[in-house]
Amino acid sequence: MSSWLEKIKWNEKELVPVIVQEVETKQILMHAWMNRDALKQTYESGKATYWSRSREKIWVKGEKSGHYQFVESILTDCDYDVLLINVRQKGGIACHTGRHRCFFNKLTDKNWLESGEILKNPKDIYGK
Amino acid sequence: MSSWLEKIKWNEKELVPVIVQEVETKQILMHAWMNRDALKQTYESGKATYWSRSREKIWVKGEKSGHYQFVESILTDCDYDVLLINVRQKGGIACHTGRHRCFFNKLTDKNWLESGEILKNPKDIYGK
Repeated sequence: MSSWLEKIKWNEKELVPVIVQEVETKQILMHAWMNRDALKQTYESGKATYWSRSREKIWVKGEKSGHYQFVESILTDCDYDVLLINVRQKGGIACHTGRHRCFFNKLTDKNWLESGEILKNPKDIYGK
Repeated sequence: MSSWLEKIKWNEKELVPVIVQEVETKQILMHAWMNRDALKQTYESGKATYWSRSREKIWVKGEKSGHYQFVESILTDCDYDVLLINVRQKGGIACHTGRHRCFFNKLTDKNWLESGEILKNPKDIYGK
């Protein structure tokens, strides 16, 4: 494996957390995970590619929905144990609920209040 | 414990990842972790409070450096397993290296290139 991949401090499951920020709005679209192959593939293809912890496999964001994330830059932090990627979100929908971004529950008076318009029905994104 | 705390999906170590975004610039300052007590204390005090995985204890950001993070909002994602907090960074320094933010290593030609001005010597922040 390449030395730049080995500089990352992979966790006990050989993963790192990934913060996904939108280039145009600077909004945080989502938070995901990558393993070495996902990071390498992201860098080489320019399309955000993650490790799905539930499905236990590599996952090109947008492969089913068409909502690809085109990567403009990849950064890591002072400890080399978190990634931050800056992306352009195709279709404007990053969240599987059909919203622009995943962070739509805001803590308000000891409750999580949902917000964020549902731009597209998930059934229409992924099929039934 | 309060029901809003129990809506969060704590991981196998009873923690959640926390993305820390600056209100004024929308930059990602850092990525940290919280347990229930840290989140509760953050909400009640208005000062970002984390769980230190290396020291295995609650940690009020800024307690040694004076670089507190004043929290404007707390959000969670569609899966309730990640937090995003919007903060005002006192002193303008979030990173223990003396930089404004932790994400200063950019992947460039298969190398991590360091950037980001060191605003203050870490020795002057934390003592020797």
